[in-house]
Amino acid sequence: MRPSGRETHQMRDVSIETGVTRHAEGSCMIRMGDTHVLCTATVDERVPSFLKNSGLGWVTAEYGMLPRATHTRMRREAKNGQSGRTQEIQRLIGRSLRAGVDRVALGERQIQIDCDVIQADGGTRCASITGGWVALKLAVNKLMKAGLITADPLVDPVAAISCGIYAGQEVLDLDYPEDSEAGVDGNFIMTAGKLVEVQMSAEGATFTRGQMDKLLDLAEAGITDLHRIQMEAVA
Amino acid sequence: MRPSGRETHQMRDVSIETGVTRHAEGSCMIRMGDTHVLCTATVDERVPSFLKNSGLGWVTAEYGMLPRATHTRMRREAKNGQSGRTQEIQRLIGRSLRAGVDRVALGERQIQIDCDVIQADGGTRCASITGGWVALKLAVNKLMKAGLITADPLVDPVAAISCGIYAGQEVLDLDYPEDSEAGVDGNFIMTAGKLVEVQMSAEGATFTRGQMDKLLDLAEAGITDLHRIQMEAVA
Amino acid sequence: MRPSGRETHQMRDVSIETGVTRHAEGSCMIRMGDTHVLCTATVDERVPSFLKNSGLGWVTAEYGMLPRATHTRMRREAKNGQSGRTQEIQRLIGRSLRAGVDRVALGERQIQIDCDVIQADGGTRCASITGGWVALKLAVNKLMKAGLITADPLVDPVAAISCGIYAGQEVLDLDYPEDSEAGVDGNFIMTAGKLVEVQMSAEGATFTRGQMDKLLDLAEAGITDLHRIQMEAVA
Amino acid sequence: MRPSGRETHQMRDVSIETGVTRHAEGSCMIRMGDTHVLCTATVDERVPSFLKNSGLGWVTAEYGMLPRATHTRMRREAKNGQSGRTQEIQRLIGRSLRAGVDRVALGERQIQIDCDVIQADGGTRCASITGGWVALKLAVNKLMKAGLITADPLVDPVAAISCGIYAGQEVLDLDYPEDSEAGVDGNFIMTAGKLVEVQMSAEGATFTRGQMDKLLDLAEAGITDLHRIQMEAVA
Amino acid sequence: MRPSGRETHQMRDVSIETGVTRHAEGSCMIRMGDTHVLCTATVDERVPSFLKNSGLGWVTAEYGMLPRATHTRMRREAKNGQSGRTQEIQRLIGRSLRAGVDRVALGERQIQIDCDVIQADGGTRCASITGGWVALKLAVNKLMKAGLITADPLVDPVAAISCGIYAGQEVLDLDYPEDSEAGVDGNFIMTAGKLVEVQMSAEGATFTRGQMDKLLDLAEAGITDLHRIQMEAVA
Amino acid sequence: MRPSGRETHQMRDVSIETGVTRHAEGSCMIRMGDTHVLCTATVDERVPSFLKNSGLGWVTAEYGMLPRATHTRMRREAKNGQSGRTQEIQRLIGRSLRAGVDRVALGERQIQIDCDVIQADGGTRCASITGGWVALKLAVNKLMKAGLITADPLVDPVAAISCGIYAGQEVLDLDYPEDSEAGVDGNFIMTAGKLVEVQMSAEGATFTRGQMDKLLDLAEAGITDLHRIQMEAVA
Repeated sequence: MRPSGRETHQMRDVSIETGVTRHAEGSCMIRMGDTHVLCTATVDERVPSFLKNSGLGWVTAEYGMLPRATHTRMRREAKNGQSGRTQEIQRLIGRSLRAGVDRVALGERQIQIDCDVIQADGGTRCASITGGWVALKLAVNKLMKAGLITADPLVDPVAAISCGIYAGQEVLDLDYPEDSEAGVDGNFIMTAGKLVEVQMSAEGATFTRGQMDKLLDLAEAGITDLHRIQMEAVA
Repeated sequence: MRPSGRETHQMRDVSIETGVTRHAEGSCMIRMGDTHVLCTATVDERVPSFLKNSGLGWVTAEYGMLPRATHTRMRREAKNGQSGRTQEIQRLIGRSLRAGVDRVALGERQIQIDCDVIQADGGTRCASITGGWVALKLAVNKLMKAGLITADPLVDPVAAISCGIYAGQEVLDLDYPEDSEAGVDGNFIMTAGKLVEVQMSAEGATFTRGQMDKLLDLAEAGITDLHRIQMEAVA
Repeated sequence: MRPSGRETHQMRDVSIETGVTRHAEGSCMIRMGDTHVLCTATVDERVPSFLKNSGLGWVTAEYGMLPRATHTRMRREAKNGQSGRTQEIQRLIGRSLRAGVDRVALGERQIQIDCDVIQADGGTRCASITGGWVALKLAVNKLMKAGLITADPLVDPVAAISCGIYAGQEVLDLDYPEDSEAGVDGNFIMTAGKLVEVQMSAEGATFTRGQMDKLLDLAEAGITDLHRIQMEAVA
Repeated sequence: MRPSGRETHQMRDVSIETGVTRHAEGSCMIRMGDTHVLCTATVDERVPSFLKNSGLGWVTAEYGMLPRATHTRMRREAKNGQSGRTQEIQRLIGRSLRAGVDRVALGERQIQIDCDVIQADGGTRCASITGGWVALKLAVNKLMKAGLITADPLVDPVAAISCGIYAGQEVLDLDYPEDSEAGVDGNFIMTAGKLVEVQMSAEGATFTRGQMDKLLDLAEAGITDLHRIQMEAVA
Repeated sequence: MRPSGRETHQMRDVSIETGVTRHAEGSCMIRMGDTHVLCTATVDERVPSFLKNSGLGWVTAEYGMLPRATHTRMRREAKNGQSGRTQEIQRLIGRSLRAGVDRVALGERQIQIDCDVIQADGGTRCASITGGWVALKLAVNKLMKAGLITADPLVDPVAAISCGIYAGQEVLDLDYPEDSEAGVDGNFIMTAGKLVEVQMSAEGATFTRGQMDKLLDLAEAGITDLHRIQMEAVA
Repeated sequence: MRPSGRETHQMRDVSIETGVTRHAEGSCMIRMGDTHVLCTATVDERVPSFLKNSGLGWVTAEYGMLPRATHTRMRREAKNGQSGRTQEIQRLIGRSLRAGVDRVALGERQIQIDCDVIQADGGTRCASITGGWVALKLAVNKLMKAGLITADPLVDPVAAISCGIYAGQEVLDLDYPEDSEAGVDGNFIMTAGKLVEVQMSAEGATFTRGQMDKLLDLAEAGITDLHRIQMEAVA
């Protein structure tokens, strides 16, 4: 029924390859099926001005897509400025990752996460969060190894997965053909059994609380898998 | 317990005054406590290019805030460009309103909703959706009266309300003092007993499915009230 | 003869409602017929860098129009940047208000006036100046009450009115139908019997010194009325 | 008394050199003392879209200043965008020149005037208008010679001069040292004994109708001289 | 002597992996040592407006760098606009590739090359040209296979290599540590024994024609190797 | 054979008029045939932030063209931002001039060169470099006269000339009709017998090392002449 032949509760194959770029303090390439996102973490000892002398750290994120990551080429944002969609996504990534950070333990420094979509097939914001956390964790590990941080500010992993109602059926982890047809879709971000962010959205269709519950069940199971994959990647 | 002395399930006083501006095809001023938003609807017989010759209509929205709508003055967006937050809000308003539109019945025309915050005290995006629907409905009524539309493309109202966890308690309709302290908050958009959009977000805190259910209960009750107020306004 | 049926020397009904917004240090809604402008004053204890340590104060202004303040919707300036016309108007408002300010008495602080047109029917820049002065005065009164200023830096009111030659006749206070037809129009800004700014402009027609004198006569009488209304508003 | 030693009614030496650039349909370098402006006219057979099929012509203007035209270097507008002041000036130049144009006689074409200040010493907008008219006239002459226009759309010249109150005295044609000190200054634009535009502006000072009359007397005499110099230049 | 221990005439290890992205009509990842550039080719059946109905094709290029491709993070161009350096590089890539294209044989269509630097260690513009040609060739092959083009518009490969004077010595293929120290460096672009573009540039040092000849010798040998690697990649 | 009737090795008539603007520390108008560029030098005692407390000076350049410097009017960059071409040219001018500067001798100050094309007929970037050096030298002379610099930081002049292959023939100093037809053209920048920058570029054609040598021969002879004219101008 699903274009890919997957079961409704079946996530695409996920892999997280770490250390993929030479310069960043933390990096990984996350692949969820044909969606590939390069995530890097940059440690900056300066914080934004609103945090100066607060003793608190900050995590922020930027998101981009190569122009031909998609089926048809998109205009390059460097020429046209970031779209509203891009800004919305990078705000979401930053907010989600911060929800899993003990900002006192991080200390007064900033970690900048860059998520760049190399190839897109749906679910790029979720892959960015899941991979972004891995890059963040690797950078934090480096700071801890160097003795700059003593207590780990990242206790539990943060991961994200999309769900939606496709052809009347609740399904996990929509790929592009599903995403472009789904009447309802959403993104669920969780850490250690708790919710961090829920975004469900209908265009043209609406949904019941019963449907929402089923999507949450799917998401919880999927995120449990993702947390395991994240922990293996950073081990 | 709440700074305003309201009960946890108690919404602020809401009023919707229609016909507040002379030129727009539909208009209202919605007041939710000290949050005041002017909403106008403009009918445009041209549609965006991706809809040319499709027979389908479109509803879109823009959002703004007067610089001194807030406690301290914000920089004027006309001088600095729209922030990511503004773009995210106006995308949400447009998407939410479209979910309640039969775009075939609307016919190949666009209705542009402008939501301008005159005074802000929390919940401006929700007030914009609730008031925006009223302006939209008034413009549609005008089109129907003129015989340009025969079947009403807006069967049920779309309204929105915020909820959040303030001081450990689930509360309805956060004002600014609550909003700036809440560890979790969310916006719920509904039409006729169905969900249109759910956005829940944690910064620093996380939440359980149980808490989310309680917030949904609060929201459902609040939106039932808002739908009634909307229907009275457009009667 | 005039589309509104007014006499040539007759101003539209003017009202100034103060205290219309909760957060600003001074605010009013000025209504000149169907032209409605919301004016707010924001006190900022910092001055622009060219005035640092000068002991002198500053008054500046910004001007905007809601997209559907006009007969047909205008593009939102937050999306497209301020037009040349907008910049010209806000420079005029700031310059005019400053002409009535004793900048030593004001002390090294800035008052920012925001004039936002809620509904437009001609004469928005004049209404902005007249209402802007009221907002400014209210903010100054607050500073004086708080003992931050001892001598009133605003001795006489500054007000503005448009005049023009419509259908061959000198008329006071043009509304939009007149403004769009007038071959010559101008704005006159005065304080206590003295001129602050004169802007007369012809497109397609020219004018004699005799005509200009008649327009000045009309303006002087109109501004006398406006000054009285301003003083009543701030009393 | 004047820094330059000029009499109060004495204009600086004015020269207009035509044909200074090879490509433009009309061009001149106007020199008013140390203020030098290069004015070119470009004929474009297309009109702005609001004039398509109207049979009416259009004249528009753009204004710029070389970065080191001034005492201290200004930032290049190509890097930073046009300032509000620049936009205000170029709108004034276009509006003033159009007041002297019979747009039916011009026919459905546009003439673009570019005024670029090579060296600045006060009065650049006035020199731009006076020189801009010469460039415009030369371009029109070329069109007439080519038989593209039959009746001259420019019957009388348009010229501009500044006046102001410097050290308590009404003076004609302010140079930069006067301009930067004057409490009141203004620009007067005239054609054949009639006024086209009057702009008088006070910052810190105000002025009486009596003072304004004296400034107009000065301006009328100055513009009579400028008209003669313009006619000699285009002869 | 060279930081990498390479001989003066020794290029870094070069590999070109094709078909690295799913959507593009042609793609490769070129690796020159630690410089990695992802090159994609997009076929667009529309040409820029200046070529409409000319029968001629066009090849153009855009260049970007991921923010953390470099030792320290660079600001994201999507947020700040393309720098002058970026624009200069993408103009060079497009111009160089076009020099090897028979635009009649290509037919009236455009091929857009995107070169995105995933990791940078000097020589990114040269790698972009060399890899860009491979992506272009793969897209052309696809068009030929589909019968849309009959004669191959790309007869000989275009490749590029940098040379410079480092520590007084002419060296081939500068990496970042050399590039940042070299007093003279240049880029040489060649096709089939002929030069396409030569860019040599001194900052702080100058160079003789004798030195330039030696650099050209190095470049010719290097490009011969690159052409072989390109031909293997597209075979 | 050449449209102008010049010999292949013949440069256009060159003149350099100094002291052409009143305010700049150094200025000249360089005329190479019908290409006229106004060059000014501005001394700024502040350096860019990356040079603070380094003891080193800086020379930088900006380039512009009046809109009607060209055969058909170009859009004004102040309205549209600097094109990639403009940025590339001004980077080249700055880099070339710096190659002839002893930055220790200059001391920690910046000299800003502005090159504004008043009339264009090919070769504007070369004229800008040659004239820019003259403006720079005049400003340096002023600093030396004032005792602010003791050793001359500009020992030898920097000049530039274009060459190209026009109608199969190597020619010196292309004018616009040649430039727009040439298959290969280049810019050569030299100081005292040494090369500073070589830029050769083919669009549609390619070239051999033999042809490049001939172009270098032409350029060397031309630049010898330019150096003589520069030294006469600054004498």
